[in-house]
Amino acid sequence: MKKTSRHRLRTRIYVIVFRSDTRAGRLFDLVLLWLIILSILSVVLESVASFRAGYLPYIRVAEWIFTTAFTLEYGLRVYSSHRPWRYVFSFYGLIDLLAFIPAYLSILFAGAQYLVVIRAFRLLRVFRILKLTRFSNEGNILKSALKASRYKIIVFLTTVITLVTIIGALMYIIEGDESGFTSIPMSIYWAIVTITTVGYGDVSPQTPLGRILASILMVIGYGIIAVPTGIVSVELARATDEAKEKCPACQTPVYPRGARFCSNCGKELRAG
Amino acid sequence: MKKTSRHRLRTRIYVIVFRSDTRAGRLFDLVLLWLIILSILSVVLESVASFRAGYLPYIRVAEWIFTTAFTLEYGLRVYSSHRPWRYVFSFYGLIDLLAFIPAYLSILFAGAQYLVVIRAFRLLRVFRILKLTRFSNEGNILKSALKASRYKIIVFLTTVITLVTIIGALMYIIEGDESGFTSIPMSIYWAIVTITTVGYGDVSPQTPLGRILASILMVIGYGIIAVPTGIVSVELARATDEAKEKCPACQTPVYPRGARFCSNCGKELRAG
Amino acid sequence: MKKTSRHRLRTRIYVIVFRSDTRAGRLFDLVLLWLIILSILSVVLESVASFRAGYLPYIRVAEWIFTTAFTLEYGLRVYSSHRPWRYVFSFYGLIDLLAFIPAYLSILFAGAQYLVVIRAFRLLRVFRILKLTRFSNEGNILKSALKASRYKIIVFLTTVITLVTIIGALMYIIEGDESGFTSIPMSIYWAIVTITTVGYGDVSPQTPLGRILASILMVIGYGIIAVPTGIVSVELARATDEAKEKCPACQTPVYPRGARFCSNCGKELRAG
Amino acid sequence: MKKTSRHRLRTRIYVIVFRSDTRAGRLFDLVLLWLIILSILSVVLESVASFRAGYLPYIRVAEWIFTTAFTLEYGLRVYSSHRPWRYVFSFYGLIDLLAFIPAYLSILFAGAQYLVVIRAFRLLRVFRILKLTRFSNEGNILKSALKASRYKIIVFLTTVITLVTIIGALMYIIEGDESGFTSIPMSIYWAIVTITTVGYGDVSPQTPLGRILASILMVIGYGIIAVPTGIVSVELARATDEAKEKCPACQTPVYPRGARFCSNCGKELRAG
Repeated sequence: MKKTSRHRLRTRIYVIVFRSDTRAGRLFDLVLLWLIILSILSVVLESVASFRAGYLPYIRVAEWIFTTAFTLEYGLRVYSSHRPWRYVFSFYGLIDLLAFIPAYLSILFAGAQYLVVIRAFRLLRVFRILKLTRFSNEGNILKSALKASRYKIIVFLTTVITLVTIIGALMYIIEGDESGFTSIPMSIYWAIVTITTVGYGDVSPQTPLGRILASILMVIGYGIIAVPTGIVSVELARATDEAKEKCPACQTPVYPRGARFCSNCGKELRAG
Repeated sequence: MKKTSRHRLRTRIYVIVFRSDTRAGRLFDLVLLWLIILSILSVVLESVASFRAGYLPYIRVAEWIFTTAFTLEYGLRVYSSHRPWRYVFSFYGLIDLLAFIPAYLSILFAGAQYLVVIRAFRLLRVFRILKLTRFSNEGNILKSALKASRYKIIVFLTTVITLVTIIGALMYIIEGDESGFTSIPMSIYWAIVTITTVGYGDVSPQTPLGRILASILMVIGYGIIAVPTGIVSVELARATDEAKEKCPACQTPVYPRGARFCSNCGKELRAG
Repeated sequence: MKKTSRHRLRTRIYVIVFRSDTRAGRLFDLVLLWLIILSILSVVLESVASFRAGYLPYIRVAEWIFTTAFTLEYGLRVYSSHRPWRYVFSFYGLIDLLAFIPAYLSILFAGAQYLVVIRAFRLLRVFRILKLTRFSNEGNILKSALKASRYKIIVFLTTVITLVTIIGALMYIIEGDESGFTSIPMSIYWAIVTITTVGYGDVSPQTPLGRILASILMVIGYGIIAVPTGIVSVELARATDEAKEKCPACQTPVYPRGARFCSNCGKELRAG
Repeated sequence: MKKTSRHRLRTRIYVIVFRSDTRAGRLFDLVLLWLIILSILSVVLESVASFRAGYLPYIRVAEWIFTTAFTLEYGLRVYSSHRPWRYVFSFYGLIDLLAFIPAYLSILFAGAQYLVVIRAFRLLRVFRILKLTRFSNEGNILKSALKASRYKIIVFLTTVITLVTIIGALMYIIEGDESGFTSIPMSIYWAIVTITTVGYGDVSPQTPLGRILASILMVIGYGIIAVPTGIVSVELARATDEAKEKCPACQTPVYPRGARFCSNCGKELRAG
């Protein structure tokens, strides 16, 4: 095989494996997406006792097929990538590696069945596939909105953690062991369960004073839940706005999408 | 009966059955709405043991009256429709059919009482009636907002499903059978119950590590609940906006509120 | 007492009782607010068994003092009002009457202690007092936002009721009596508890199929909770906007509150 | 030591202790932040029975180190402050004092372990440290949004309290002692647990009428949760907006985005 034809092969593989603007590339992505979904399904089903009893050999065979496929795919990615090491240490590169490594480890170590869970991260690969489609733009808007909100969210989380620690300590003193508030960490766990409105009910206040404090925490939590929602709404509105076309003459955002004239200066944006 | 008079009869029935801009049409819709509500009430009450014991014969009679009425109505719709087959295979046409079919099936098959539930879809017919009123516009705004959000919501749901699967698998390893985390699907069910802040408490973590992981999941869920709210708020604001002032020249909605030029035809709306 | 002096007395009482722009009027409102709060506190405490055992005579005395005070106040309102009947049949007039009627009924009928609960509506009178203060404007913005959202909310509630009925019926068939889904109304109650994310856990699915359906309902409920929030946010933003000052020259809303020049046409709004 | 050199020392301490724009100041803040976190961790761990059994002497030593450090720090702050009394009675001054006082009290009074919880307020000091960084701006936006919403939130909370009291009283009458609704306060506690969608399930309705009322409360709560979210979203959008473009002539924020004239001084910002 000559160097040019080898180069051409690598380029062809690259186009199929990394991109999705050709028929073959789209097919590859679709097959991979299904393999990921099926491999997770097989791990999930293996954990069901009644299923494991009846179909364990079939699950094992299926898992080795998935492992082989993912190993082969990883090899092709490393081979065809222009900068292999950059791919290997990228976020998706590491996830691709973790998608099949635990399966090989399970041969050497009997207890490696616990590591199988890492394989669930394969699901995240779906995003890489989606990244190549129109979902990318929407994902970027969401990411941009969350990034712009990060300081507000840190301030918010610090307040929540402080509140939960103080209320947790107070409840530990008020309620005590009888009600299930056996330690401050346990009380903090209860306070988080309450403030997030999850409310399992595995621990709940039994004394009048504890119930009053719990009621105050719930009403506060009620108001607090409004804050992250407000933050994300505002940033999402801004990120959506910023992704909009602007008038080349006056820089006013163009409304609605695909408008023919600028609403501020009347400049014609596209021919009728 | 001559052909023209038959044609006139079909047109009259069409106006009463399909439209609601005449007195008779509005009365028909109102009677139908009440029949639907009463028929669902009768199915619901039949399921209550104490009620079934005392009033079963009355319920049965009532149900057959409803079934006859809905069958008759379906016949009238097919007869009067200009394109009968198009109606039969439309969304509302199928719901109209499913509204009485299970009742007839229950004569042939003893176990058909399970199919009676399909009759609950009759409630959706309320929307068709509402569609003819001023609710239509509001419903369209909601529908448009949800449609515009669909890609963002798919990205969001994929993230949630990935998160729930990974956390579910981790909790299965950490907690194990004693705490009720008997399989990964069971753990995923618990993770969904937790992240959506429902929190039944039928399964809840018992180990310190499990409680820490659950706390992290709750706080994440707390932040995540903000995302769909933000998405729908932003799109709803846009959809509401789009239903505003229209250009007197080309009927395009005017953006933004108080814009000086129409964004579609460039007509000056207000003097500078 | 002459007619003019009687008229003057009625006017003075009116100013004190119905308005709060004088010292005496404000004092009257404040005393009334405290009487309402104390009377509700006494009803609430009476229901606590340990408290009733020790302090019943005191509570009874206190309640008769409150009843006398509210009766007297009602008399003054009817006497001083310009259109007594209009007051009597107004919303607040009826609440004022219901604030003391049950107390008198409890003399005639032994079981009238059940009617005492109506007295809790006295709390709503707080709004009438607040209405006369700066809270009025904020309350009107909230009311306007909710009123503008009413059709959207009706469409939304109809969807939720339909969904809850259909899911309730399905869960009744899938889960059955063993899991606590004893009838369709019971299942609908469970579906409401789930979709609103309350999640008591008194009834929860036990079968795999039931858990899958419950998971779907929870995720849907997750998305659905976004809709009313979005609706209210949008309308609240609009109502807040509409309560803003507009430029007399170009009708553009004035930003920010108390701005000196219009941001659109530069017209001077207030002297520097 | 001369007066000028003492003055210079005080100024140097002030710069390190109160400010964070020097290397030493930033290091001081960082060390303090870690001391606060470690001291809270030690209080939290002391409450865990298994941990207390094994490591109590070490915890005690650690706590005395923290107490000494915080006492020293308090002394330095009082010594270096230009207006010592103003600092002592400020919010953070009081929290600094409460951070070590309970530890000394525990020598005199055996039961002072209950007062140790006040030490958890030390976590709030994190905000003072954060205040000196870029988080300050975000915190101010959140604070400004919450402040602007305060009347709306009071109106909202009054409505919730009225609703919860009336529903609580009704449920007490309907359900009674058997279902756990032992008094009106207990029923109000249940109503708060329900309306905030926490839903522990320690108390839940058992009668059909009670379940219907509970369902109504949940659906209302569903709509009500939208109100504070909407309020905060709207105010947050306004507060975020206010932190935007400023007029080059008078430094007033420019409204709305892209406005042509400054709303304060009338300066033309962009050509028409």
